[in-house]
Amino acid sequence: MIDINLCSVKPISHTLDGALLFAINNKTKPLGSLGQLEHLALRIGRIQQTTSPKLQKPHICVFASDHGIASEGVSTYPREVTPQMVVNFLNGGAGINVLARQNSIALTIVDAGVNAEFGNYPILIKAKIRRGTRNFLHEPAMTLDECRTALAKGGEIVQGIHAEGSTVIGFGEMGIGNTTSAAALMHIFTQEPLETCVGRGTGLNDTQLLHKRNILTQALERHRSVLANVIKHPLDVLSTFGGYEIAMMCGAMLEAASLGMIVLVDGFIASSALLVAYALCPAILDYCIFSHESDEHGHAAMLRFFGATPLLRLSLRLGEGTGCALAYPIVQASVSFLNEMATFESAGVSDKR
Amino acid sequence: MIDINLCSVKPISHTLDGALLFAINNKTKPLGSLGQLEHLALRIGRIQQTTSPKLQKPHICVFASDHGIASEGVSTYPREVTPQMVVNFLNGGAGINVLARQNSIALTIVDAGVNAEFGNYPILIKAKIRRGTRNFLHEPAMTLDECRTALAKGGEIVQGIHAEGSTVIGFGEMGIGNTTSAAALMHIFTQEPLETCVGRGTGLNDTQLLHKRNILTQALERHRSVLANVIKHPLDVLSTFGGYEIAMMCGAMLEAASLGMIVLVDGFIASSALLVAYALCPAILDYCIFSHESDEHGHAAMLRFFGATPLLRLSLRLGEGTGCALAYPIVQASVSFLNEMATFESAGVSDKR
Repeated sequence: MIDINLCSVKPISHTLDGALLFAINNKTKPLGSLGQLEHLALRIGRIQQTTSPKLQKPHICVFASDHGIASEGVSTYPREVTPQMVVNFLNGGAGINVLARQNSIALTIVDAGVNAEFGNYPILIKAKIRRGTRNFLHEPAMTLDECRTALAKGGEIVQGIHAEGSTVIGFGEMGIGNTTSAAALMHIFTQEPLETCVGRGTGLNDTQLLHKRNILTQALERHRSVLANVIKHPLDVLSTFGGYEIAMMCGAMLEAASLGMIVLVDGFIASSALLVAYALCPAILDYCIFSHESDEHGHAAMLRFFGATPLLRLSLRLGEGTGCALAYPIVQASVSFLNEMATFESAGVSDKR
Repeated sequence: MIDINLCSVKPISHTLDGALLFAINNKTKPLGSLGQLEHLALRIGRIQQTTSPKLQKPHICVFASDHGIASEGVSTYPREVTPQMVVNFLNGGAGINVLARQNSIALTIVDAGVNAEFGNYPILIKAKIRRGTRNFLHEPAMTLDECRTALAKGGEIVQGIHAEGSTVIGFGEMGIGNTTSAAALMHIFTQEPLETCVGRGTGLNDTQLLHKRNILTQALERHRSVLANVIKHPLDVLSTFGGYEIAMMCGAMLEAASLGMIVLVDGFIASSALLVAYALCPAILDYCIFSHESDEHGHAAMLRFFGATPLLRLSLRLGEGTGCALAYPIVQASVSFLNEMATFESAGVSDKR
C-alpha cells in the first residue's frame, strides 16, 4: 500500500500558459528561435505560476552512502573511496565543488549511510541510517523502516534548504556500488531488459560488466517475490535493492516538488531515485528539469521512459550532481530571457511582415 | 591567389599533451568521466600551451549588416529589422545582451554595413563598408576591395579586444537575409547539395523556402565562373555571395586564432564565415570551439564537414552569438576542473584497485 502522505505534490496548473506563451513569443526574436530555452521558460513559469519567475539561492545536495553489494566486485574502485570522496567534498576538491562554486550554487553534503565517521563541517549534514546497506545478493539492502526514515530525512533536509529561500535544487550522489542498485531499480520500474540497464559505472571492463549483470540476475531471482507487485509496493523495491542515498534523494525530490521547487535531475543514480518518486507520485515530473544525458549505459533509455529531453549531452558519467551544476546556467538563461529581453513593441522592432 | 598574410595562424603544438592528459587523468574522478569537458580542457591547454589555462575577459563581438539579396523575399522579416535590432543591441534588450550579461561576457556591436546611421554608444564600433551589400542575384555582393577591407577591419577589431586582455572571443551576427548568403557559401565550400544547405532562417514556410532555394539556384548559375576554382580563390566566393558581417567575422576569426585566442563558434552564419577562414587557413580549426548545433537546416552537415562536436544542442536558431554565450559556462567548467579539482594523491583518494 502506498503511503499517501508520500505524495503531496500538486499537479501543475496550466492557467498561465496563455500569458506565458504570449510573453515568450513577443520577445525580439523569431518565433521559437530560443528552442529548448523557451520550453524551459514555460515550464518554470508554470511551476512558479508567474510570468516573471525567479531562481533564488540555487542549491545542490549530495547524498553519500555505502553499499553492501559492493562486496561482490561490481565496481572498479574499493569501498573506501566513498568516505574518501566525502572528505574530498568537505575539503572542496571534488568535481561538484568546482562546478558549484563556478556557478554560485550552494552545496550541502549529506552522510546518508557512509561506512565512516566524519568531523563537523558547515556543509555536512549527518543523517547516517546505518554504515552501509546490506548486501542485496543475500538479503534486502535495508529494512522498510530504514527506507521510510531515509525518505523522511531527505524531505526534512529539503525543508531546511527551502526555508532559507531556495527555489531551485539539484541532487547528486556518491556511493561505490550504487550503479548496481540503480540498474536493479531501472530494470524493475521501466521493465527494460537487464542488458539495457547495466552499465560500466566507474569503468568496468567487459568481463567485470558481465559479472555485474550476473550478480544482478541472481539478486533479482532471490527477491522475485518483491517483483510481484511493483506498482503497489514501490517502497518494497526501493528497500530491497536501493541505497540510503537513493532513498534519501527520492524523499528529497518528493518534498522539493511538493514545496513547488524546481528539481534539477542529474544522471543515472539520481534518475533511478526519481523512478521510485515517480512510482509514488507521478505529478513530480512537472517539477523536474533533466540536466543531462549521462554516458552511463541505461540513462538514455531511462530518459526515454520519462519522456525527457535533457539539456546537455556531454558524455559525463561522474555523478555528484555535476550535471545539475553544469546545466544550471542554461536554466538561468531561460528565466533571464523571459524577464529581461525587450518585446517587439518596447524595442520598436517590426514583427514578421 | 590566396593572400598569404591572411593565414598567420600557427599550427597547434602537441608538446604538452602528455602533461595535460596526466593532469586531467589524475583528478579525483573515474577516468574520462567528465566526457567532453576533458577534451575541451586538453584543447584549451594546447592553445595556451599550459596545464593551467586561463579564460580572461571573455568577449562577444556581434557584426551587423544588410543584404541586397533581401530584396528577393528570402526572409520573413523586412530589411528594417537589421537596424532596429542593432538599436535593440545598443539598448541592451536583445537575446545576446541578456545572455552575455548573465555570464559576464563583454559585448561589442559592429556596424559592418547596416543601411542606417547610428549615434555614438560605448559598445558600438562603426565600421560600415557600405549601406548593405549588392543583390547577388544580379551582381557580386561586394567588390574584392570591399571584401579585403572587411576582413582587415574584422582583424583590427579583434586586435583591440585582445590588447585589452581577452583570451576568449565569440562572434555573432545580425543581418536580414544572411542565411541566404551563408547557404550559398556552405554549398560552395562543402559541396553539399543546395537542399541540404538552405533552411527556413527566421521561419519561412514551405513555399517561401522553395523560393529561397530557387533564388539561390539562379544566383549560383549567374556566378558559375566564380565556382570554377574555389580552393584557389575563396575570397572571390566570399565577395560574390557573402555579407559584410560575414567577411568581417571571417577576418576576426583568423586574427583571433593567429593571436592564440580561443574562438567560440556560434551557429549557421558564423560557421559559414569559418568555412571561408578554413579555406584560407585550415589551422584555424585548432583554435575553434563549436558552441552549439543550430536548428537552422544545414548546420548539422556543416558541423560534420568540420568534424566538430558541438557543446550544446538546444534547437536554437537566433544567431547574435547567443550560442557562444550559452556555451561559455561549459568552456569555463573545463578550465575550472583542470585548475581546481584535487588529485587522487592530494585528496588521499584510492585510485582503481
